Amino acid sequence: MMVTEKRYSWLRLLLKYRGTAMQRIRGRMALTTLLAVVVTVIDLNVRFFHPDLTTIPFTLIGLALSIFLGFRNNTSYDRFWEGRKLWGGLVNTTRTITRQILTLVNAPADRSDESEAVAAFRREMVYRIIGYTHALRLHLRDQDRLEELEPFLAAAEIEALRPELNRPTAILQSAAFRLRDAWQRGWIHSYHLPVLEQSLTVLTDLQGGCERIKSTPIPLSYTSLIHQLVAIYCFALPFGIVKTVGVFTPVVVGIVAYAFYGLDAIGDEIENPFGMDANDLPLSGLSRLIEVNLRQRLGETDLPPLLKPKAGHLT
Amino acid sequence: MMVTEKRYSWLRLLLKYRGTAMQRIRGRMALTTLLAVVVTVIDLNVRFFHPDLTTIPFTLIGLALSIFLGFRNNTSYDRFWEGRKLWGGLVNTTRTITRQILTLVNAPADRSDESEAVAAFRREMVYRIIGYTHALRLHLRDQDRLEELEPFLAAAEIEALRPELNRPTAILQSAAFRLRDAWQRGWIHSYHLPVLEQSLTVLTDLQGGCERIKSTPIPLSYTSLIHQLVAIYCFALPFGIVKTVGVFTPVVVGIVAYAFYGLDAIGDEIENPFGMDANDLPLSGLSRLIEVNLRQRLGETDLPPLLKPKAGHLT
Amino acid sequence: MMVTEKRYSWLRLLLKYRGTAMQRIRGRMALTTLLAVVVTVIDLNVRFFHPDLTTIPFTLIGLALSIFLGFRNNTSYDRFWEGRKLWGGLVNTTRTITRQILTLVNAPADRSDESEAVAAFRREMVYRIIGYTHALRLHLRDQDRLEELEPFLAAAEIEALRPELNRPTAILQSAAFRLRDAWQRGWIHSYHLPVLEQSLTVLTDLQGGCERIKSTPIPLSYTSLIHQLVAIYCFALPFGIVKTVGVFTPVVVGIVAYAFYGLDAIGDEIENPFGMDANDLPLSGLSRLIEVNLRQRLGETDLPPLLKPKAGHLT
Amino acid sequence: MMVTEKRYSWLRLLLKYRGTAMQRIRGRMALTTLLAVVVTVIDLNVRFFHPDLTTIPFTLIGLALSIFLGFRNNTSYDRFWEGRKLWGGLVNTTRTITRQILTLVNAPADRSDESEAVAAFRREMVYRIIGYTHALRLHLRDQDRLEELEPFLAAAEIEALRPELNRPTAILQSAAFRLRDAWQRGWIHSYHLPVLEQSLTVLTDLQGGCERIKSTPIPLSYTSLIHQLVAIYCFALPFGIVKTVGVFTPVVVGIVAYAFYGLDAIGDEIENPFGMDANDLPLSGLSRLIEVNLRQRLGETDLPPLLKPKAGHLT
Amino acid sequence: MMVTEKRYSWLRLLLKYRGTAMQRIRGRMALTTLLAVVVTVIDLNVRFFHPDLTTIPFTLIGLALSIFLGFRNNTSYDRFWEGRKLWGGLVNTTRTITRQILTLVNAPADRSDESEAVAAFRREMVYRIIGYTHALRLHLRDQDRLEELEPFLAAAEIEALRPELNRPTAILQSAAFRLRDAWQRGWIHSYHLPVLEQSLTVLTDLQGGCERIKSTPIPLSYTSLIHQLVAIYCFALPFGIVKTVGVFTPVVVGIVAYAFYGLDAIGDEIENPFGMDANDLPLSGLSRLIEVNLRQRLGETDLPPLLKPKAGHLT
Repeated sequence: MMVTEKRYSWLRLLLKYRGTAMQRIRGRMALTTLLAVVVTVIDLNVRFFHPDLTTIPFTLIGLALSIFLGFRNNTSYDRFWEGRKLWGGLVNTTRTITRQILTLVNAPADRSDESEAVAAFRREMVYRIIGYTHALRLHLRDQDRLEELEPFLAAAEIEALRPELNRPTAILQSAAFRLRDAWQRGWIHSYHLPVLEQSLTVLTDLQGGCERIKSTPIPLSYTSLIHQLVAIYCFALPFGIVKTVGVFTPVVVGIVAYAFYGLDAIGDEIENPFGMDANDLPLSGLSRLIEVNLRQRLGETDLPPLLKPKAGHLT
Repeated sequence: MMVTEKRYSWLRLLLKYRGTAMQRIRGRMALTTLLAVVVTVIDLNVRFFHPDLTTIPFTLIGLALSIFLGFRNNTSYDRFWEGRKLWGGLVNTTRTITRQILTLVNAPADRSDESEAVAAFRREMVYRIIGYTHALRLHLRDQDRLEELEPFLAAAEIEALRPELNRPTAILQSAAFRLRDAWQRGWIHSYHLPVLEQSLTVLTDLQGGCERIKSTPIPLSYTSLIHQLVAIYCFALPFGIVKTVGVFTPVVVGIVAYAFYGLDAIGDEIENPFGMDANDLPLSGLSRLIEVNLRQRLGETDLPPLLKPKAGHLT
Repeated sequence: MMVTEKRYSWLRLLLKYRGTAMQRIRGRMALTTLLAVVVTVIDLNVRFFHPDLTTIPFTLIGLALSIFLGFRNNTSYDRFWEGRKLWGGLVNTTRTITRQILTLVNAPADRSDESEAVAAFRREMVYRIIGYTHALRLHLRDQDRLEELEPFLAAAEIEALRPELNRPTAILQSAAFRLRDAWQRGWIHSYHLPVLEQSLTVLTDLQGGCERIKSTPIPLSYTSLIHQLVAIYCFALPFGIVKTVGVFTPVVVGIVAYAFYGLDAIGDEIENPFGMDANDLPLSGLSRLIEVNLRQRLGETDLPPLLKPKAGHLT
Repeated sequence: MMVTEKRYSWLRLLLKYRGTAMQRIRGRMALTTLLAVVVTVIDLNVRFFHPDLTTIPFTLIGLALSIFLGFRNNTSYDRFWEGRKLWGGLVNTTRTITRQILTLVNAPADRSDESEAVAAFRREMVYRIIGYTHALRLHLRDQDRLEELEPFLAAAEIEALRPELNRPTAILQSAAFRLRDAWQRGWIHSYHLPVLEQSLTVLTDLQGGCERIKSTPIPLSYTSLIHQLVAIYCFALPFGIVKTVGVFTPVVVGIVAYAFYGLDAIGDEIENPFGMDANDLPLSGLSRLIEVNLRQRLGETDLPPLLKPKAGHLT
Repeated sequence: MMVTEKRYSWLRLLLKYRGTAMQRIRGRMALTTLLAVVVTVIDLNVRFFHPDLTTIPFTLIGLALSIFLGFRNNTSYDRFWEGRKLWGGLVNTTRTITRQILTLVNAPADRSDESEAVAAFRREMVYRIIGYTHALRLHLRDQDRLEELEPFLAAAEIEALRPELNRPTAILQSAAFRLRDAWQRGWIHSYHLPVLEQSLTVLTDLQGGCERIKSTPIPLSYTSLIHQLVAIYCFALPFGIVKTVGVFTPVVVGIVAYAFYGLDAIGDEIENPFGMDANDLPLSGLSRLIEVNLRQRLGETDLPPLLKPKAGHLT
């Protein structure tokens, strides 16, 4: 899902809760702050309580932490943004292939009686591309809802998809077979078939890019090391600052922990951008957009509405 | 808009106000500095006022803040610069497609009587490309001014655009239909049609790139977390330094807040580079430039002037 | 190998050991912590033991260290991720070339008696591509197991591979020869042969990219300098903090060393992503995936299972 | 211009002045150091002069400053290096198009009497490409010296360039017209015209990239904010360190100011890499190199010399 | 040269000397450490020696230094890695063009008597590509050893290269002429000539990329400023820490200087990756690899051995 009401005023953004990192990290936050309160209370009341770590360890470890968190943050965002680019590429290439189908598939000049068959073929192909988009969305979200493809593909074709491990690829394959049929019937010029074939290759590459992001998390070594360092840092912090900061210790620990847990949690959230987390990509919205764009190119006017965000979130 | 008088002397740049970040953040600045003044005055006059945070929390949180602000800054600028590259690509590709229209569309050697029709077709196509550029600008700025396209497209074509969700795409579609017509009349060689088709694909990709940037803000989690950390940092700062810096506290807080709010505000401003903020991209200037470039290639001499910056800003 | 159970809870991840950096660095960790214990014990018991380095050197050297470790980290991950992209490209391009073989290789309309020969040719080609994938995996892992290719290539072809320095390239060469044969028999249109040839070029580039990463480690100057700095830093640290941190010195040294050795070790591990380390790429899993995908396109139903992770690791 | 004597010894480089940043910032340096001297003298002699800022503000603001300067530096260098890549692309593509002109433009086998006309055409085209390169250089440097193109283009063609807003584009246009003429005369195969057309498209893209860098400075918000922060930092520094560093204050301020002003100034210098600053790209040298390379391909031996650096600088 | 024994144990790497940065910087190191010893001795023995800079200046200047060194490091490594990618591209593209020569150049079906001439032509072309690779290596290393090309090019062709400014380009040109000849004799299909031409274009681009890196050092402003800051920092350091660190001053200065000089020196070393420094790219090894790969494709079995590293270095 993507949070869409993007034009918050500065003040409203300060106070926002839903869709922000705080929602995910409240458990850790509570635990950490509680520990800080306990340490502070003991320190203020018990005379000879002095496990004073000083702030030196935090400066030293801060160096490694900043490398880790900076890396973690950039990597997660790159994955999010590459995912977005891939779906942007899908928007572009479905438009391109639609344009190519509408202009490069034609009845030969001397066989105008075939023009209706050609028009039906074009429509079938554009609908197949729409079906491909929805199938890819379902594939990336591990959703087994073949029925969502019914408006776009023939029943037999949908049935044939059932045993397929990779359904979007199977749809592209049948698109390629149909293009070959059209070429063999003389509807597509031999010089122009490679142009359409090239667009299928681009779709294959876009799909593979999405699958790559989905199937390859950031190496576990990183994630575990970062999680551990952040936790150690935050849990040990009260022992390091209570002698200096005194009664404000829980506040300071709370803010620092908020920053670090927050950074870590955002990374977790957008690492797989095709999921259903609050800040993930709105695949449903994008595939609906593609559907409407393409059907409008076929001259249809009875179009479904674009998806609207619900409570500020678009799935 | 883009601020264009780029060759300021070092001194004038120091004192500049318009088009700089200060303009956007004066509210926050005033509030923060005021608080610092209040804290300083109380501290200097009240005896037992000691909520002394020390500077330690600011060092600790500074680590997270520098990751966030550095990330925020790079990301926003990347969006700005990618937007500029996309419009640069538009400049290039409209020139390329114009050159291709002028050289690859020809009356066959044995039908020189069609040369006038071909010339008219070429002009129509180049004007359609100009119209496409203006339509894309309006589309990215959510401006519904179809009348701006009147010099470039036939009235019927403009009317047909009205119900279109994505007007630039519709224009590219009709360009493709017209190219097919020319090919079917023998004006374009079968081997050369894919060359023109390829240029339309490039335009589709450029447009999609712009739409992607426009429709996908930086995830809200980031923006809200950064805003919050910066605000907490600046509001708490006087409590941390007043014991050490004393009477200069408001000055120091002012400068630090200026740096942080400034970084944050510039990010906000250029995050969507297609808007009308002081540092956004000059889409009007660029589309006018394309118009002039392309019409000059048609041999026209009665050209509109390039847009000049008004008070140092180009829209 | 890749660690796959990616959805650990926050707590489980904190306590994980297998597949994390700790496994690789326990020797160094033990040595460093032991030294810290010794230094601490001496300092607490010997009166005039004062080689006090203070923390200043660690701040100064920290600057260089953070550049080095940040660089090291980014570079190693980039290599890992580029390796993954290259294998993702292999997934995509093998799908693409399979689609092209199935649709662009056809018996001419007037020679339908050749259709069985064409079908056999298609199957042979797709199997050769599968064989290519497995051969590339073996090549990148320096494994001399030609027998793994037996299900996919003719015995004579496998035998011919034996003296080859670069077996995957030799397989692509014979694929190219077979495509030429098909073209000369009229099964591939002259205009479409370049399309298939282009896919072979993409495979060549992907393979070369993998070989480049494998054969070019990060320059030794870096690795040695980083290793030395990290070791000096960690060994000297007890002398710098024992006067301030006292009895907690071994704990602090342990944590800091964990962070630095950990960063360094993860870099070592993923620098060559085609190896068999805990976080390397699952080449076996990916080549099996390609095999299943491609055979399903040939309409086969008797498919081998996808590889499942063993104890959370996929080779 | 580019400073070329790159193999300085370590010591000579330490003491170098010309072509370094110091040349640009001596004014600011003098002012800042002078202020530091004044502050130091007063502090050492006046008893109750204590505007002591302490070093805390400089640490706090240092965080923002390092983000800004790091960003500024990377961005400027990216522009410089992208500019260099674009001109490198020009070197490559002019070689490529020359090779294509020499091999893909041929008199048909049965019309060997046209071979001289073809040779003249080839020479004319290669000279036009050389002229294009020089015209692009003049265009990027805002130099109106049409006479420099005289050796390469016919007088009439030069005259026709005079009213053109974008002369390099106009030259590419006439190159395209001439290629069409050759195609229509049967000198270029229909399948090979797109190859040549593609090279013109690459040139168009390279040119557009240069124009983009030239016309789009880094947003003013950044430049002004960075300039201001650096200036405030350096001017305030003596007040922060004079109590601690005492008589060495001017030296320390001088060195710190040198580093910061230097970073800022290098950014200014290479931000527009097509200018005539000491470290800008040697467009004259590069376009001469292209000229010599291309004329040698025509078999000419009477070649102009490559440009040699004057006093270590190449324009 | 490239250091190849990459699988050092952690301990051996710690103690390695050859091929590491230490070798290059021993002079500077000795000088700096000596100064530190002198300052320490004076400080410990002379009563009123107090030019105490404190550590503050080093913290302040550290900010700028870390930006500079981080930038320097990334830039140098990017150049190294881009150089490697370009030569990796050479490996790939020579394989690709060999495959294309072997499959797309054929005697027409009705002229089988030409098949021997075709085989000779193929061999000549592949040998020319090998010769091109060696010529490019010599060109990038400014070595005038034309005799190394004798096994691959005809004597007349080598002689004709002598006056050429850019010999690799001249070889590509004659390759293009020979391809045209083959096309004109009917050995290459008109549709397939652009495929081969495209591979020559890729080679041209790869070569141009190498020349760009070689001819464009990092702007002198940077290098000089960085060298100066590092030197000032290291020379001044003893005055800053001797009061605190005392007798350990030379050790601390030595380690810090090692880190900074080391970073700087590695940058110098790999900035031009085509040289003969210890960590430069093994162009000789790579061009030999290409030679062996390509000759094996011609079916040759009498192959030269791959280059083996001598004393751990590959040239």
